[in-house]
Amino acid sequence: MRMVDIIEKKKRAQQLTDEELEFFTNGVADKSIPDYQIAAFLMAVYFNGMTDRETARLTLLMAGSGDTADLSSINGYKVDKHSTGGVGDKTSLIVVPVVASLGVKVAKMSGRGLGHTGGTIDKLESIPGCNTSLSTDEFFKVVNEVGCSIVGQTGNFAPVDKKLYALRDVTATVDSIPLIAASIMSKKLASGADGIVLDVKTGSGAFCKTEAEAEKLAKTMVAIGEHAGRDVRAVISDMDRPLGHAVGNNIEVIEAVKTLLGEGTEDLRGVCIELASNMVAMAKKISFEDSRKEVTAAIDEKKAFESLCAMVKAQGGDERFLRDTALFEKAGFSHDILSEADGFISGMDTYKIGVAASLLGAGRETKDSLIDFSAGIYMHKKTGDRVNKGDVIATLLTNKQQSIANASDVFISAVSYSSEPVKLQPIIKKRITKEDL
Amino acid sequence: MRMVDIIEKKKRAQQLTDEELEFFTNGVADKSIPDYQIAAFLMAVYFNGMTDRETARLTLLMAGSGDTADLSSINGYKVDKHSTGGVGDKTSLIVVPVVASLGVKVAKMSGRGLGHTGGTIDKLESIPGCNTSLSTDEFFKVVNEVGCSIVGQTGNFAPVDKKLYALRDVTATVDSIPLIAASIMSKKLASGADGIVLDVKTGSGAFCKTEAEAEKLAKTMVAIGEHAGRDVRAVISDMDRPLGHAVGNNIEVIEAVKTLLGEGTEDLRGVCIELASNMVAMAKKISFEDSRKEVTAAIDEKKAFESLCAMVKAQGGDERFLRDTALFEKAGFSHDILSEADGFISGMDTYKIGVAASLLGAGRETKDSLIDFSAGIYMHKKTGDRVNKGDVIATLLTNKQQSIANASDVFISAVSYSSEPVKLQPIIKKRITKEDL
Repeated sequence: MRMVDIIEKKKRAQQLTDEELEFFTNGVADKSIPDYQIAAFLMAVYFNGMTDRETARLTLLMAGSGDTADLSSINGYKVDKHSTGGVGDKTSLIVVPVVASLGVKVAKMSGRGLGHTGGTIDKLESIPGCNTSLSTDEFFKVVNEVGCSIVGQTGNFAPVDKKLYALRDVTATVDSIPLIAASIMSKKLASGADGIVLDVKTGSGAFCKTEAEAEKLAKTMVAIGEHAGRDVRAVISDMDRPLGHAVGNNIEVIEAVKTLLGEGTEDLRGVCIELASNMVAMAKKISFEDSRKEVTAAIDEKKAFESLCAMVKAQGGDERFLRDTALFEKAGFSHDILSEADGFISGMDTYKIGVAASLLGAGRETKDSLIDFSAGIYMHKKTGDRVNKGDVIATLLTNKQQSIANASDVFISAVSYSSEPVKLQPIIKKRITKEDL
Repeated sequence: MRMVDIIEKKKRAQQLTDEELEFFTNGVADKSIPDYQIAAFLMAVYFNGMTDRETARLTLLMAGSGDTADLSSINGYKVDKHSTGGVGDKTSLIVVPVVASLGVKVAKMSGRGLGHTGGTIDKLESIPGCNTSLSTDEFFKVVNEVGCSIVGQTGNFAPVDKKLYALRDVTATVDSIPLIAASIMSKKLASGADGIVLDVKTGSGAFCKTEAEAEKLAKTMVAIGEHAGRDVRAVISDMDRPLGHAVGNNIEVIEAVKTLLGEGTEDLRGVCIELASNMVAMAKKISFEDSRKEVTAAIDEKKAFESLCAMVKAQGGDERFLRDTALFEKAGFSHDILSEADGFISGMDTYKIGVAASLLGAGRETKDSLIDFSAGIYMHKKTGDRVNKGDVIATLLTNKQQSIANASDVFISAVSYSSEPVKLQPIIKKRITKEDL
């Protein structure tokens, strides 16, 4: 078998056999296929796509290319969640304890990653003492005792995906639905959960600009789950506006706590309830409506908040910061952004808001950069809100005073205004289960 | 400027600017763009093509990426020809002296290349003493004195093309019309002729399987000529049958001599007259019909044959071999292939015939392989000919007796028969000039 023939086949839009896909992933893993052939193949996949069968097979091969988590020492059904990424997305900090408080186990391994803000791991680490580098035994022990744990992903998970991801980034082949689906699902399958709920974002701030694209990606991933014998559901949620008020690290933890105490914004609360309800319905094999009632009650009765405190405590964190969020370190400098017009905020470019937060110190520029946990942006007003010229619409928070001018320009350019009221899209657009395939 | 953005643009089928194309060719030349980005770009070009303007600009940049021939010390208009490649194509050996005998200069640099048979250079070298490695001064002197010379290409011509060609071969991106056109024309433009006539082959043995593809390639190359300020014409010729009777090296020289003496096959003679007439018409700025009369007369009056003898002699070759082709070395072993049926030869797969010739020793397996000048295949019967079962249709010639069984199998598999007469396509299908753009 020769890689050039496999590229040729995909270039001619023919379906690859299991053996050809295995030749490919083996060759990527053992470096016998040179990067230029991988790159040409990825571009051919961009143009000609892959069938659900090819995508599922590729995903399973990628998932099996490195370590896989054995969660068998955790009792019961294990559920996981994944978001395709959004600015100000603190849903994991909320959803994981909600689900755990209802008796459903979550052993979540999260990537640290490069991004405009830190990942879930960085946000957790903004709580003093909270350790996200538990040993496997400690991790399983916390899950068995508290019901959930979130740790940084270690080990060599889906190394073929790592390699492909790095190449896609520099060859303009990121935006291919089968490649995105295989990348996400290979890591999720390797992480070992029985059920997975996916939050597929759509809108200006997301990879999937349209709901149709998001639906296609969601269906592709649910189909992979079917082929792999795992329960997978997807929720399509709106990312035309930032989720909640806070973009940063400790300010997102504070917002997560508020949401668990019933004080969060409707959009953030809505997404979290939707995701958690799917996870619980899947694990308990109950209807979505019954699950939703349990989830809402878990928040209203503060059971979920107690689960977050228990998890943080079990991981060495100081839970007092959760019970009194005023204890969190505050940024040295703050700068208010004022409304430029009377009327309504008609749009907020979430990508630019992420860039602004990163400039303030909330994200990492390189793998080894240090994150400023207190930096970020608090948006007092969001898309759809009525504003008067001069109202404070956001506050920039940073310890690097010199970054404010730049971040302010970027943030201001992200906001657009309208004199007419703005009709907001529902935050949850669709739910995709295997019945929708 | 970043290569990933250039790939992205081409992926989105947007037209690249001159600056972007220059960034690309410079980056290929100085190796600052990694192979995987080049490969992804080539595949995006395969899918989305390039406009004539982009293709012309890329070609000029490729032509300028290395040495370029300065033919100014040769008096008068210089004309060149190029064929997209065919098995048994000895047209250069015929066309070049024809044109020179009519006072039009040809300073031809030919690649040695890997192929099923040798290139024009190898064929010339099968004439004892004939030197194809002249110094530039000697080369120009022969052209000025005799009217033509054919030498092996030395120097660093179009190095960006070399690099791209090598990558295309292993990334399944050979069959892209703008990339083929840029590859051919970059080398031709660097070779410095004022006018270029292209022989674009079509049919089972050619890259362009259909006449429509051949026409597209031809037009693309003529358009590049227009952008570059050179006269370029193209002829689309049939490659569904081998050209002439001989496939090999010295047997092709013998056939070329026969054709120059008026004894060649109609198809070979037809292609040569067509190509030469275009070259002369272009150089003398006369009508094709007037040019054709001159060309036919040059053959009929043996002036063209004398030009070949003069060129070979000026390059140190023994012209007696041309005047008495019986002097050429003969292969040690010959093997007749017999017709398998009564009826007509309905097809000859020229690619397979090339493979058979190569097995017999007529081609090179690697860059450093030695060619057996006397090896090859002489086809007594060709597509369209009536045959009786048991007729000798071809003779295999070789010095490697052990190769005969294998080559014979391949040759036999290349020939198909029909009980009905076969209608042959005209050998010349179309002529493309700048007026056709």
